[in-house]
Amino acid sequence: MQSNHHKILIESIRRLLRRDATTHLVKIVDKTHVADLAEVFRSLSLSHQRKLFDMISDTEQKGLLFSELDEDTLMGFVEEMELDDLVEILDHMPTDDVADLIGRLPEDKSASILEKMKKEGSEEVEGLLRYEDDTAGGIMVPDFIALRENITSRKAIESLQKEYMDVEMPFYLYVVDEYGKLVGVSSLRQLVVVRPDTPLKDFMTTDIIAVKTDVDQEEVAKIVARYDILAVPVVDEYGKLIGIVTVDDIIDIIREEATEDILKMAGAGEEFVETQSVVRSTRIRLPWLFASCVGGIIAFIIIGRFEESLSKFIYLAAFIPVIMGMGGNIGTQSSTIVVRGLATGRLNIIDIWSVVFKELAIGLILGVIYGVLIGIVAQVRYDTGALAISVGVALICSMSVAALIGSLVPMLFARINVDPAVATGPLVTTAIDIISVFFYFTIATTLLGI
Amino acid sequence: MQSNHHKILIESIRRLLRRDATTHLVKIVDKTHVADLAEVFRSLSLSHQRKLFDMISDTEQKGLLFSELDEDTLMGFVEEMELDDLVEILDHMPTDDVADLIGRLPEDKSASILEKMKKEGSEEVEGLLRYEDDTAGGIMVPDFIALRENITSRKAIESLQKEYMDVEMPFYLYVVDEYGKLVGVSSLRQLVVVRPDTPLKDFMTTDIIAVKTDVDQEEVAKIVARYDILAVPVVDEYGKLIGIVTVDDIIDIIREEATEDILKMAGAGEEFVETQSVVRSTRIRLPWLFASCVGGIIAFIIIGRFEESLSKFIYLAAFIPVIMGMGGNIGTQSSTIVVRGLATGRLNIIDIWSVVFKELAIGLILGVIYGVLIGIVAQVRYDTGALAISVGVALICSMSVAALIGSLVPMLFARINVDPAVATGPLVTTAIDIISVFFYFTIATTLLGI
Repeated sequence: MQSNHHKILIESIRRLLRRDATTHLVKIVDKTHVADLAEVFRSLSLSHQRKLFDMISDTEQKGLLFSELDEDTLMGFVEEMELDDLVEILDHMPTDDVADLIGRLPEDKSASILEKMKKEGSEEVEGLLRYEDDTAGGIMVPDFIALRENITSRKAIESLQKEYMDVEMPFYLYVVDEYGKLVGVSSLRQLVVVRPDTPLKDFMTTDIIAVKTDVDQEEVAKIVARYDILAVPVVDEYGKLIGIVTVDDIIDIIREEATEDILKMAGAGEEFVETQSVVRSTRIRLPWLFASCVGGIIAFIIIGRFEESLSKFIYLAAFIPVIMGMGGNIGTQSSTIVVRGLATGRLNIIDIWSVVFKELAIGLILGVIYGVLIGIVAQVRYDTGALAISVGVALICSMSVAALIGSLVPMLFARINVDPAVATGPLVTTAIDIISVFFYFTIATTLLGI
Repeated sequence: MQSNHHKILIESIRRLLRRDATTHLVKIVDKTHVADLAEVFRSLSLSHQRKLFDMISDTEQKGLLFSELDEDTLMGFVEEMELDDLVEILDHMPTDDVADLIGRLPEDKSASILEKMKKEGSEEVEGLLRYEDDTAGGIMVPDFIALRENITSRKAIESLQKEYMDVEMPFYLYVVDEYGKLVGVSSLRQLVVVRPDTPLKDFMTTDIIAVKTDVDQEEVAKIVARYDILAVPVVDEYGKLIGIVTVDDIIDIIREEATEDILKMAGAGEEFVETQSVVRSTRIRLPWLFASCVGGIIAFIIIGRFEESLSKFIYLAAFIPVIMGMGGNIGTQSSTIVVRGLATGRLNIIDIWSVVFKELAIGLILGVIYGVLIGIVAQVRYDTGALAISVGVALICSMSVAALIGSLVPMLFARINVDPAVATGPLVTTAIDIISVFFYFTIATTLLGI
């Protein structure tokens, strides 16, 4: 469904909700894919969400909807629900999503839910809760097909028809030894194309791509993306197969990680916060702005020290914005290219010096171009050679240093295993602001002889 | 393979290449997955790339490597190759990648390649070249399974074993009518679980998610992500099935689109450019910086108009950096949240006013907090009430307006179907710089009565 259709869907559902047109709404809800319903849900008020939710007749559909909702919408909605209703729906959700949700609830609530979930799945959920949210263990599902290597293709197909009807993504058949250790992998397709009496071990692949439970989800996503696979098996420390991470979850992770990086780079937190909460958003952005506030105060102190020079050459002040702005922008360009390059694997930290050198060269060239341009503007306006030269040289220095810092800082952060995305945004920009102002006044006062 | 392993792999291959240790290298190349080789390739010089490439014995492996390489690395490499060698390798690549590559070559070269590719696939490639690169038609592959609705499950499995051995992603079986029109879809899994004599029409799904050839790739990616499917069928204007887009390509698209957005927001072009070319990178960044340069000149003109006031209150200049910096940073936060929110579907343009209002509220709150803080700093340093108030009020205005512009501009851009990512970065920042400076001096001169 394209975004325009979404817009129409949201608008009509809102209108119908306001009009309490239940019959009509039930019909729409019935015909709409849960993924689309989830999208609608997000832009409704809590009371409208509840109304719409009650119109879904099928518990399974309700479970699917929960899986599709983003965290904030879901948590807001779940907090107000009756425990019994909630547990019934959780029973219809994929284990990894249930574990995720329970892990985010207040402790007393999650304990009583786990207690209530008496079905076999509950142990699975408890199992998943042991792993960190953003590791292979936290995102895996325990639904996979595991067969022994002596089983023939025919037998394998039979067990698919019986035991494994519930498996979500039955494309890979994992082959395990007597201890459950992963020893091979085959595919549904291979099953279908080999002769029925061929044992798995004769056509399985033993060259297995697998991850341990503690591997970071970003790393898991990279592996799935790199090797073009639909699921990656997760093994414990003994090599025992305990779950799989499927490609549909990987897609969500790739989008989330990109979002995280983008928001971090802008100093706007790590995750989207609830769309309605101004207070939470404010709290998240506050500390990042503090960095730039401190930077501003430092710049203010620097300029204060040059007050006397400023009083002689008032027009020095007029060039502060252009020097800060150009430095800040080229610094952002450099750091963005490096941060994203590292995230996508396009840049490698072992190439640190060639990358930094390249950025420095770009900064220098662009600095010269714009330095000359702004120098000419200064000359035309004030007709003071020394000022024009000061402004031009300051711009060259500021832009080169900005490109240098912008590329070097994230590279260094990556090298010491700190997320390079954090290094950019306010931190780098603020550093560049301070340095630019300092350079500018030092160069200007020297050249103007004041 | 984790990034640390990659680092080791790259370093050892580089070392071996320098030492010309061919036997050792051939062994490593043989054992390494092409996806990993592609990663290594990227950080080698062209001559080393060529050396390493010649060590790959299997043409199919060479084709796979080509598919894995990023565009710049590939194009640099291909330009120097003999036509015959190239065509032989192209024969071993997926059709969509071949079409992509040929579409990017100079016209004369691509024409002679197409001529040489005499195999049946060549027409397929020519077919794909008709569609825009970043549409469903441009990214689809023509390898899919299409069966008629009366065929039984057993017959279907038989034809999988015969005709469709080459299909890359055989998870969905598309059901078509006599004109090739898509009428249903089934899965390999369903084939295996139903009774062998059941005709497809009895268990196929008729509720099909499909896209037309001209749908934007970003939209296709959203559909695959939303509905958690592994492939989406592509139909022509008559509903005839002509290709599928598979989830592995979708993953690449999602990463590319995120990268594009990030780079655009930073005003650093749309795509990563060849890692070695300083000149190309410079050229791409130049126009974006020009926006901020023009902004700087405007700010300079504004400040020039207040020169007289400045000469009376020199210390007004000292607060320029903090007011510009804070405004710029909160503007970037707001615009980033809106741009990414729109891209992920978390924000919808119909909510424009609630989003903008929320951002304005956040800007106002943060403006008051930091306005008071900086006002106090000003008061402590200069002990001039009017100055402290001017600085504080200017900061409040600047931050509120920055949040307003930062959220409103991308929303408006989205509404008129211009990519909102372009709206952020240098454009928004520059606008905010100008407005901040203007506010500051207007408020200060009014309050200080100069």
